[in-house]
Amino acid sequence: KHIVVIAGDGIGQEVTTVGKQVLEAIAKKYNHEFTFDTALIGHAAIEATGSPLPEETITKSKESDAILFGAVGHPKYDNDPSAKVRPEQGLLGIRKALGLYANLRPIKLFDELLSASSIKPEILKGADILFFRELTGDVYFGEKGRTDDRNTAYDTMIYSRYEVERIAVKAFDAAMTRRKKLCSVDKANVLESSRLWREVVQEIALRYPDVDVEHQFVDTAAMLLIKDPKRFDVVLTGNLFGDILTDEASQIAGSMGMLASASIGDTTGLYEPIHGSAHDITGKGVANPLASVLSVALMLDISFGMKAEADTVVQAVDSVLKAGFRTRDIADSSTPADKLLGTVQMG
Amino acid sequence: KHIVVIAGDGIGQEVTTVGKQVLEAIAKKYNHEFTFDTALIGHAAIEATGSPLPEETITKSKESDAILFGAVGHPKYDNDPSAKVRPEQGLLGIRKALGLYANLRPIKLFDELLSASSIKPEILKGADILFFRELTGDVYFGEKGRTDDRNTAYDTMIYSRYEVERIAVKAFDAAMTRRKKLCSVDKANVLESSRLWREVVQEIALRYPDVDVEHQFVDTAAMLLIKDPKRFDVVLTGNLFGDILTDEASQIAGSMGMLASASIGDTTGLYEPIHGSAHDITGKGVANPLASVLSVALMLDISFGMKAEADTVVQAVDSVLKAGFRTRDIADSSTPADKLLGTVQMG
Ligand SMILES: CC(C)[C@H](C(=O)O)[C@@H](O)C(=O)O
Ligand SMILES: CC(C)[C@H](C(=O)O)[C@@H](O)C(=O)O
Repeated sequence: KHIVVIAGDGIGQEVTTVGKQVLEAIAKKYNHEFTFDTALIGHAAIEATGSPLPEETITKSKESDAILFGAVGHPKYDNDPSAKVRPEQGLLGIRKALGLYANLRPIKLFDELLSASSIKPEILKGADILFFRELTGDVYFGEKGRTDDRNTAYDTMIYSRYEVERIAVKAFDAAMTRRKKLCSVDKANVLESSRLWREVVQEIALRYPDVDVEHQFVDTAAMLLIKDPKRFDVVLTGNLFGDILTDEASQIAGSMGMLASASIGDTTGLYEPIHGSAHDITGKGVANPLASVLSVALMLDISFGMKAEADTVVQAVDSVLKAGFRTRDIADSSTPADKLLGTVQMG
Repeated sequence: KHIVVIAGDGIGQEVTTVGKQVLEAIAKKYNHEFTFDTALIGHAAIEATGSPLPEETITKSKESDAILFGAVGHPKYDNDPSAKVRPEQGLLGIRKALGLYANLRPIKLFDELLSASSIKPEILKGADILFFRELTGDVYFGEKGRTDDRNTAYDTMIYSRYEVERIAVKAFDAAMTRRKKLCSVDKANVLESSRLWREVVQEIALRYPDVDVEHQFVDTAAMLLIKDPKRFDVVLTGNLFGDILTDEASQIAGSMGMLASASIGDTTGLYEPIHGSAHDITGKGVANPLASVLSVALMLDISFGMKAEADTVVQAVDSVLKAGFRTRDIADSSTPADKLLGTVQMG
C-alpha cells in the first residue's frame, strides 16, 4: 500500500509524524509493505509554491492508496478578510478534486476519559455516534462573491438530489450494521436546500424499513447532542451543519484531540483528525497525536480492509489511556506529573 | 402600555397565558396600566385565515408598545417538504415587517439549577453570556428556490455592511455595560458573507478600544461553548449561526424552558421564549412557563424602561426555584413529588 502524508500546517506536522510511525509499526507487526510519500498543502504550500493546493499534490494523492492528512490554517489569513489565497482552499480543493463526498466522524468516548469531558459522566457513558457529514457540496462550494461596491457579500447554499442520495445511502448502510437508528439533520422549516435534503432522505428511508429514522432541525440537534448524546446512533447531515455539530460533539469524546475522520468517495480515502492546525500550541510538542493515530485505524479498516490491524491500533490507544498516560488536553487534576506526556512520547 | 399577545402554536398558548398574568400582577403592584390585545400567527393563523401572518397581526403589532410572543410550528408541515404555506413564515415575516434585526438571548444559570444541566456544575458556575443574534438577514431571507426539474435547491446566505454594523454597535454597547468582552462568530475561512461580517466587526471594534474582541469560527465556538462557557461575555453572530448556538447554549441554563429573548429594532420590541411550539407536550399542562415569564422581564426592562419591575420578576423566578419548585424539564431525581408543578401552578 502506498500512502501520501499531507501534513499541512501547525500541529499537522507533529501529529502526522506519529500517525506515520503507527503505520510503520503495523507494517512490521503484520508483515505488510507500506510505502510513503509526502505532499504540500495549505499555508505550507502557499509559502513554497504560491498555491494552497499544488497540482503535484493532487496527482500524488490520486495515485496513492490512502492519504494521511494533518491540518490546514494560519492566523495570518484568519485576521485578514480580504486575503485572496487561503490555506483552507487547499483542503476544500482536495476534497473536491478527489470526490470525497462522505466524511465519517465517529464519536465515542474511551471509558478512561469519562471524567475529561465538561459533560457529566452519566450523560456520556455509552454514547456512540457515527456522523456522516456531506463534504463536497453546500454553502462551501456554491457560488460566492461581492457586489461591485463590496458592501454586500453572498454564498450559495446548494444541494442536488444525487449529492444527498449517495451520502444518505452510505449512512443508511452504516446504520444497518449498528443500532439501526438514523437522525437526519437539516433546517427544513426555513431552507429550501434543507427541504430537498429531507425529501431525498425520506425517499431513501423507504429502502431501509428496518432503520428507525428521525429528522431534527439543526438548532434542536445542537441542543440534544449535549442534553442526551445517547439518543443518537448514525447522524446524517450537510457540510455546514456537520462542521458545526461534529466540533460540538467532540466534547462528548472528552477532547477534539481524540477525534478521527475518514473522507471517502469512490476512490482514494483521506484520513484526518477533526482538530485544526492549532497555532497556539504549534511547535510546543504538546499536541495530542491520538486523533491522527485513530485516523490511521480508520484508514486500515476502511481503505485497506485490515480489521485486525485497525483493532490493534484502537486497543493500543485504549491501553495507553488505561495505564493513565495523558496529553495535556485530556489530563485532569488527578493526572500525576509523570503520566503527562508530550506528542512524541504519547506516540 | 399596550401589549399584543401573539400566542401562536403548541405550548405558545399555555406559556403566554402565564406571561400575561405576570404583566397583570406587575401592573397591580406598581400601579401601571397595561392593556392587552391578541393576534394570530403560525399554524393557528393558517387554520383561521389561510395566512401564517395576517395583515391585521402586523397592524396591531406596529401600533403596540410591545409584543408578547409564544411559538410557531406544527409537525404537519415539518414532515411535508413540499408545503407551500408554513407556520414559520409567520415568525420570519413579523421579524422582517417590524425590522427586528437584533435578537438578544441572555444565557444565565439560576444557581438552584446548577444540577439540572447535563454539563458539570463546576464548568457552569458563573457562566453569563449575552448573545446578539442578527435576525432579519442571512440565509433566512436571501433568495431561495429550485431548478425547473426540482432536483437542485438553493438558499442565499447574504449580508450587507449596514446590517452587520447596526447589530455590531448594539453588541459592543452592551459589552461596555458588562465585562467588556465580545466574541464575534463567523466562518470567515470559508464564507464570503462571513468575511464581510468580520471586516465590519473589525472596523466597529476600533470605536470601542476598551472592549476585548475575539473572532471565532462557528465550529470552534460550538465546541468552546460546552468546554468552557465562562470564557464568553457578549457573543455576536449571524442569523443561522445564532439559531444553532443559542439552542446549544440553552444547556448551559439547564433547560430551553428557562430562556427568554428580546427581538428589537428601531420600534416595537418582541419578546419570546427561545423554545419552540413543542407539540409533544402541548395541552398536557407540563410546559415550563418561566421562559415566557423571563421574556416579560426583558420587555419591562428594554421596552418600558421599568428596571425595578423587571428585577421583581426575575427575583420571583429565583425565589420559586429556591423554594424547590420545578417543572418537569428542570426537575431531577431529588425533586419531591409535591414540588413538581405544571404550567399553571408554576405561573
Ligand atoms: C478548515 C476548515 C475549512 C474545515 C471545514 O470547515 O470543513 C474544518 O473545520 C473541518 O471541519 O475539516
Ligand atoms: C421557528 C424557527 C423559524 C426559528 C428560527 O430558526 O429562527 C426558531 O428556531 C428560533 O430560533 O426563533
